[in-house]
Amino acid sequence: MATPGAPAFGEDSLIARYFKPLATDAGAFGLSDDTAVLKALGEDIVVTTDALVEGVHFLADDPPDTIARKALRVNLSDLAAKGATPAGFVLSLALRKVDEAWLAAFARGLGADAADFNCPLLGGDTVSTPGPLMISITAFGRVPPNGMVRRSGARPGDHVVVSGTIGDAALGLDILKRGRVAAAFGGDAAARDLLISRYRVPQPRNALASAVRAHAHAAMDVSDGLAGDLAKLCRVSGVSAVIDLKSVPLSEAASIALAAGFVGMAEIISGGDDYEILCAIPQDALEDFAVAAQAAGVAVSPIGTFIAGDSPPKWLDVEGKELPLTRTSYSHF
Amino acid sequence: MATPGAPAFGEDSLIARYFKPLATDAGAFGLSDDTAVLKALGEDIVVTTDALVEGVHFLADDPPDTIARKALRVNLSDLAAKGATPAGFVLSLALRKVDEAWLAAFARGLGADAADFNCPLLGGDTVSTPGPLMISITAFGRVPPNGMVRRSGARPGDHVVVSGTIGDAALGLDILKRGRVAAAFGGDAAARDLLISRYRVPQPRNALASAVRAHAHAAMDVSDGLAGDLAKLCRVSGVSAVIDLKSVPLSEAASIALAAGFVGMAEIISGGDDYEILCAIPQDALEDFAVAAQAAGVAVSPIGTFIAGDSPPKWLDVEGKELPLTRTSYSHF
Repeated sequence: MATPGAPAFGEDSLIARYFKPLATDAGAFGLSDDTAVLKALGEDIVVTTDALVEGVHFLADDPPDTIARKALRVNLSDLAAKGATPAGFVLSLALRKVDEAWLAAFARGLGADAADFNCPLLGGDTVSTPGPLMISITAFGRVPPNGMVRRSGARPGDHVVVSGTIGDAALGLDILKRGRVAAAFGGDAAARDLLISRYRVPQPRNALASAVRAHAHAAMDVSDGLAGDLAKLCRVSGVSAVIDLKSVPLSEAASIALAAGFVGMAEIISGGDDYEILCAIPQDALEDFAVAAQAAGVAVSPIGTFIAGDSPPKWLDVEGKELPLTRTSYSHF
Repeated sequence: MATPGAPAFGEDSLIARYFKPLATDAGAFGLSDDTAVLKALGEDIVVTTDALVEGVHFLADDPPDTIARKALRVNLSDLAAKGATPAGFVLSLALRKVDEAWLAAFARGLGADAADFNCPLLGGDTVSTPGPLMISITAFGRVPPNGMVRRSGARPGDHVVVSGTIGDAALGLDILKRGRVAAAFGGDAAARDLLISRYRVPQPRNALASAVRAHAHAAMDVSDGLAGDLAKLCRVSGVSAVIDLKSVPLSEAASIALAAGFVGMAEIISGGDDYEILCAIPQDALEDFAVAAQAAGVAVSPIGTFIAGDSPPKWLDVEGKELPLTRTSYSHF
């Protein structure tokens, strides 16, 4: 029977202990209600949802705090690419069992990122499952009315620009799975750790959101592989693109793995989990965009040009030869 | 490689075929973007999220269209209880395999309800899972600024009011699991079907939302069992309640099962899956609320009174004796 004043049921008790401290927004009502309220403040609300499944999007033995942070960050990355300022999120958590140490670490990681990215927990649902752990987050952002940056606005002549570096997360996953890449970094623990952390804890480019909103004709985040995601952006925009492979920004670790032949460019640009921003920047805005990006502390690299046409993007090497791609991105089915 | 103009990947192809037709709102951009836009129109956005797991919230052999409808309706029920008008939803779908016939039926059911409740699909994420099917929906509603009806406003003297009938869904589940209740309806297929449909396809009371907003001091939907949910509402409101058991509204089928001794009142009020509205209506507003409910075509029944105090609600039989409750609601953990 319910004890007045105290959470009476297992589920409510878990929520009160681990998640209520994260519900810092007034609209969350301390998670005491069925629903949350999101004030619009005259802006448009941008909505994104991404689900992570154990064994598919993260590994069962990944640290719980990094699982939580990845679940939130993949959504924050979508908001960043759309030029939106984070406003909050709701969490659906399907657990096989209640492991309090695991939950405490999960909530700690989630809370740290919610605070760092100013994106508080607004509500959620915790359910039991006989299957793998699953986390589904729906996140909200704000943009000025009609200010969301679409996928569909790229125009011929725009620069193809990408943030950060590409391929690191896929290399990190390969290391965790003890694949070919692991051998490339036999004695170099620092490089190994960097690549693994790029897989486990994406770095969403929310600092770049206002520059994207100010300058980009189109944008999306790179989550399923740069090659496939660029093809999607081109398709929706009704354009094509030509990319200079040597301009694709690589980390030092990725460059080493590439030079040593442990990985090819095709794998780097189709590996996925990058969570960088891919955008179309008009010729005359490139300098302003670069200045704004530098002020935001995010590296950005022009890697090619959008062109008229409806053929798939071409990826050209230094000799102008096209890189053949058999698989351009990750697909679940 | 991507074929221009056509969805190139399995996942995108599934989404285009089955879910794009449901994305009728301009803010969904035909599911061609990473995110959706929700216009606030000067109102507050009410956010709710509920996840359904195969084998936990529905049965593996439930018809796919009813699984979809239940997934959306449990969220619509939350919006109704908060006085909100549906605005749209996002869907996270974790599938073990792609069964096109199943998906087509699922999308058909989802689309029918999205249209009926004026709650269009805004976006989503489709992922693969090695585990049970899981559906997580986050739904949005609109209320006038600060107009959301909270759980926390019940005051001593308010009527405890509940919509529809209680206990049917739990009886329906018992029938599906070939429990005791099935025997009560040996030859009565109509009664069996009615109870099963109450489990599989909740009837969210969105028609009652404006009356709730106009008259209720507090409200929530009854999802985990009336007894436990009333205890939660009392706790958050800082009140207690006295309920007259014989006033709890029952369907004819539930009355038969009760009279025949196949189920007790304790099970009826703690069974869960009712998706009715529980609310606190001030004494002087009861008549107006009843008139508005009748106009909306939803039955409402006063079942007791909120009182001062912090003890758990008392459920009294015709002789004034308190019904002992060992378990007041469903909890996942």
